Amino acid sequence: MAPRILICGRIVWADEDVKQLLSPIADVIYFDSPTRADFLQGFKPNGKYYDVVGIFRDNTSAEQIGFFDKEIVEGFSPSVKWIAHNGAGYDQIDVLACKAKGITVSNTPGAVDDASATTALYLLISTVRQFAISERSLREGKFKPPGHSSKTHDLTGRTLAILGLGGIGMRLAELAHAFPMRIIYHSRNKVANAPEWCEYFANVDDLLAEADVLSIHVPLRPETIGLVGENWIRKLKKGSIIINTARGKVIDEDAMIRALEDGHLASVGLDVYPNEPEVNPRLLEFPNITLLPHMGTETQDSQRKMEVRALTNLRDFLTVGKGKDVVIEMK
Amino acid sequence: MAPRILICGRIVWADEDVKQLLSPIADVIYFDSPTRADFLQGFKPNGKYYDVVGIFRDNTSAEQIGFFDKEIVEGFSPSVKWIAHNGAGYDQIDVLACKAKGITVSNTPGAVDDASATTALYLLISTVRQFAISERSLREGKFKPPGHSSKTHDLTGRTLAILGLGGIGMRLAELAHAFPMRIIYHSRNKVANAPEWCEYFANVDDLLAEADVLSIHVPLRPETIGLVGENWIRKLKKGSIIINTARGKVIDEDAMIRALEDGHLASVGLDVYPNEPEVNPRLLEFPNITLLPHMGTETQDSQRKMEVRALTNLRDFLTVGKGKDVVIEMK
Repeated sequence: MAPRILICGRIVWADEDVKQLLSPIADVIYFDSPTRADFLQGFKPNGKYYDVVGIFRDNTSAEQIGFFDKEIVEGFSPSVKWIAHNGAGYDQIDVLACKAKGITVSNTPGAVDDASATTALYLLISTVRQFAISERSLREGKFKPPGHSSKTHDLTGRTLAILGLGGIGMRLAELAHAFPMRIIYHSRNKVANAPEWCEYFANVDDLLAEADVLSIHVPLRPETIGLVGENWIRKLKKGSIIINTARGKVIDEDAMIRALEDGHLASVGLDVYPNEPEVNPRLLEFPNITLLPHMGTETQDSQRKMEVRALTNLRDFLTVGKGKDVVIEMK
Repeated sequence: MAPRILICGRIVWADEDVKQLLSPIADVIYFDSPTRADFLQGFKPNGKYYDVVGIFRDNTSAEQIGFFDKEIVEGFSPSVKWIAHNGAGYDQIDVLACKAKGITVSNTPGAVDDASATTALYLLISTVRQFAISERSLREGKFKPPGHSSKTHDLTGRTLAILGLGGIGMRLAELAHAFPMRIIYHSRNKVANAPEWCEYFANVDDLLAEADVLSIHVPLRPETIGLVGENWIRKLKKGSIIINTARGKVIDEDAMIRALEDGHLASVGLDVYPNEPEVNPRLLEFPNITLLPHMGTETQDSQRKMEVRALTNLRDFLTVGKGKDVVIEMK
């Protein structure tokens, strides 16, 4: 009998790829649980998912069954060995519970770098040039907001500080280097293959003191919750800008709002929020900030790249025993 | 007696530079005419501007006296020999009337390239990724607009057609090359120093057929009014995008609106309009387009660069007889 693979959540662009990549070598079944209880029931002996060995997981499955938390992971039948998550950020999966149970988790790095970094670049231009307020001014029939140029700068020559030089951070560095901006970064370790013009700061305080714009590219982990808090924000120069396309909870939102209120921060550009799809209504009161509804990877090109990459990880698991994109906690 | 220079319009950022560049060698006087009649009167014998030899002109002077049209130019006293316009586009000056009268006109090329091309890049990202509609959706409390990714693409790998590869067009080419996009261009002539990856199309029809996005970078001249009209727009592929940061009148606005209505154009990103500060209310009805209120050069860095450049042209005229940035019609 062919090994069973469960598609858990929506596949939008790569439906044909499922047929090509998995159907010849697996029995592909589709998630149809309206509730968490139904999902858990499916993994019990003789349940509809019982003998599944690999799962394709998309965040859309959370609408019915919530996150892959400890309860869900511990409820999987012992047959489950691989979860191929469709996305770069996998904070909706309890990877330590997976590890304890002998389940490997993969994500889709690389596939999202270009689209996410482009979103960060957009927020960078929008905030430094104050374009969001300009667009609203025009649509309200007022054309140019008064005194505009005094609040705006060219990007060229300003200093962009990148927190976390992974794939997305590096891609943003390349795009901003075209101006050029001065690019500085902080990561747990110096990145070996980073280009010369990308300066490493081992000390985060030094990085914050130099930054005109701080762009966040670290994953959400217990140790990154609230990482950009009161202390860090106040070490930025007055008039600095923060861009966040990573995860909302990496910033202490209250501390950020205080800094916007007292003018320490000139602006912020956000694609992510602590409790999506909720947006703190206090943010809507700032005319000078740019807010996107988590659009980082929302292009058909990137969505398809991600789906194909997640499916390929499952295929590699089935054919050679291991997918390429194993998440760092598993290593 | 030191030669008299008239500052006609606002100087915002380079006030100190006036003192350094002009005050030691000229008698600098400031425009104070509330009306066109008063301005013209000033150039009559014994008028307050009568013996002026050079004029710094900023578009803000149009609020009191209108454009430097034929009437104004013909009203200048014979002493006037140089008009240093503060801006790249000088369509508010009748340069042929100036030429006929022996007055040289300079502008400020280069100074605006970076800021204007950044604006075009912003409109490019906003339209290809449909970020303007996303921002409005969030601020209306709806977070993500439904079915979003099906309407959006990555920039990387798409084809950007640049109409007019002057300083601004070339700067945009460099910024878009970072993705990379494929860059193609049409100009009256092949640009000798254009890089290899920037492909010249002598035939504009061929250019339009290849473009995913057309970005306009030609000046407003009698022969460029309505240049991008029904005929050209329909030669673009269905689903194409037009970006305009040059001048509103270069596009036939009615033809553009028809193409938006019937879906031939997927979007447009506009910084300029035919009758600024008026914006055609029909444009406001399209949720999928991005509209900026002529923000191309609205940064303090670029405004200052422009002002210094215009003042330097006047200084060079006074000291060596000729400024550097003589407009093409004078050559």
